[in-house]
Amino acid sequence: MTLPPEFALIARHFRPLAGDGALGLSDDAAVFAPPAGRDLVIAADAMVEGVHFLPDDPPETVGRKLLRVNLSDMAAMGATPFGYLMTLSLPRADDAWIGAFCAGLAEDQREYGVRLLGGDTTSTRGPAALSLTVLGSVAPGAAVTRSGARPGDAIWVTGTIGDGALGLAVLTGKLVLPEPHAAFLVGRYRLPQPRLLPITGVVHAAMDVSDGLVQDLGHICRASGCGAEIVAALVPASGAARAAGDAWLARRLTGGDDYELLLAVPPDVTPPFPATRIGTFTAGAPEVGVLGPDGLPVALSSGGWSHFA
Amino acid sequence: MTLPPEFALIARHFRPLAGDGALGLSDDAAVFAPPAGRDLVIAADAMVEGVHFLPDDPPETVGRKLLRVNLSDMAAMGATPFGYLMTLSLPRADDAWIGAFCAGLAEDQREYGVRLLGGDTTSTRGPAALSLTVLGSVAPGAAVTRSGARPGDAIWVTGTIGDGALGLAVLTGKLVLPEPHAAFLVGRYRLPQPRLLPITGVVHAAMDVSDGLVQDLGHICRASGCGAEIVAALVPASGAARAAGDAWLARRLTGGDDYELLLAVPPDVTPPFPATRIGTFTAGAPEVGVLGPDGLPVALSSGGWSHFA
Repeated sequence: MTLPPEFALIARHFRPLAGDGALGLSDDAAVFAPPAGRDLVIAADAMVEGVHFLPDDPPETVGRKLLRVNLSDMAAMGATPFGYLMTLSLPRADDAWIGAFCAGLAEDQREYGVRLLGGDTTSTRGPAALSLTVLGSVAPGAAVTRSGARPGDAIWVTGTIGDGALGLAVLTGKLVLPEPHAAFLVGRYRLPQPRLLPITGVVHAAMDVSDGLVQDLGHICRASGCGAEIVAALVPASGAARAAGDAWLARRLTGGDDYELLLAVPPDVTPPFPATRIGTFTAGAPEVGVLGPDGLPVALSSGGWSHFA
Repeated sequence: MTLPPEFALIARHFRPLAGDGALGLSDDAAVFAPPAGRDLVIAADAMVEGVHFLPDDPPETVGRKLLRVNLSDMAAMGATPFGYLMTLSLPRADDAWIGAFCAGLAEDQREYGVRLLGGDTTSTRGPAALSLTVLGSVAPGAAVTRSGARPGDAIWVTGTIGDGALGLAVLTGKLVLPEPHAAFLVGRYRLPQPRLLPITGVVHAAMDVSDGLVQDLGHICRASGCGAEIVAALVPASGAARAAGDAWLARRLTGGDDYELLLAVPPDVTPPFPATRIGTFTAGAPEVGVLGPDGLPVALSSGGWSHFA
């Protein structure tokens, strides 16, 4: 009696990714001793074809993006990731696609020191729906949350903001730019860089920017009970984003898909890693003000990405 | 600036399910101290509309089934579940559907003592794709795997086998039965009963039957390096399944969606919980023999469910 094709797929592509505790992906669950004397940190994010990635995105980067958007959540908590589980609902058993998807994951497993612990592969009649749960650890009580910002704290971000959203605009033909700018932005959309940086004990609050800088900053404000004011001209932009011009400023500030860290830092502290100061947390209502180049508030029609508009 | 609708959904429906460590579902990840001195057990299963549940299944039971198929994996390892994360990719923000879905989950959280720790809600243009990661714990080294069966061990199952597959046949119009049989089988399809039983230290191997008794028994055989022989007449059937008649025997043995435990038990041991002996593990190749009512082997065209036929 032969096994259904999904078992051959698992043996060929997923089992080589499995690490300690995964029981070769051939049992009902993974079993392992948690990191001794540490808090566990765990998060789950989904990606859907046509929403979070495009049907013709290279499968290598689809797998890596799925892992990296979750690693970015670990980074935002100051946690060190160690493993993940993944469920894939796929419209067909495309051996080449799955092989390339897993090759990308293998590369990132080496880069980030994580291992596959388990999961599930199912069919769907719709677009591919991928879900990943990441596990990490942090010293007891040291996890960084969104709720610790205080009025007077400086607002810092890592990297550059807006590249992912502009990369999507390039891929969908809404933004036309010469090379190397176009390729740079597409790369930023397809392959985020999780900022696993030493933020514990340094910052008061953190989150990763996934739904748009302004909307996500609003989440820190609500969680912390303070306001925020940022200066548009201080928000770091890549050369490619600058080449897109000022017409894309609002999109850069609200587009999402950045996976950079947004940090509340005590005013007298300079982060011991590359980051840029873009504003200040203020006393008052949990609202985000954006000052434009003329020193006047910028009106934005939306703070960020919405799934159900 | 208003938040996108998914945040209202999360606040209204999901936040009441969140427990200790979930940070109110308003942070990047959950943080908690793992159960002291225990091994962690973790599994993830996905369910897709039109594959694992039907579009007009009541949302209360869809949520409960999603949780329960994962709790069944904990049961198969002898683990005690404590929490879960969930990602939902939904075609629309249907407040009533999501409310009922979460009401079902709330009921099962009370029944099984688990809490929501985190997750993600996204849109999809296709059928709903749901994924759940469950966490549990077990005494160090006590987890039950599929690889411990030995020739001579008895094969036991909990509950009755085949009801879920026949329930799906009723729902799709392929099997017509009078009440209360039809409703009983539909109930078994929609609402599995995870068998969180004291199996650690009692059984040599275990798994839960999700893809069909014969196929799943083959997994234990391959993992343990032994064969298996079961007697069809000993496989427990509900009154409703018996009412369907012998024409449905092969379907009962291979249909899946049972979520009963399949156990390798030392020959001199009687499990301290309700279960039925259906056969014996044998020395030899990892194959499953099924003896029919006439004492001759039954030929089955398929051992169980396949996602990519």
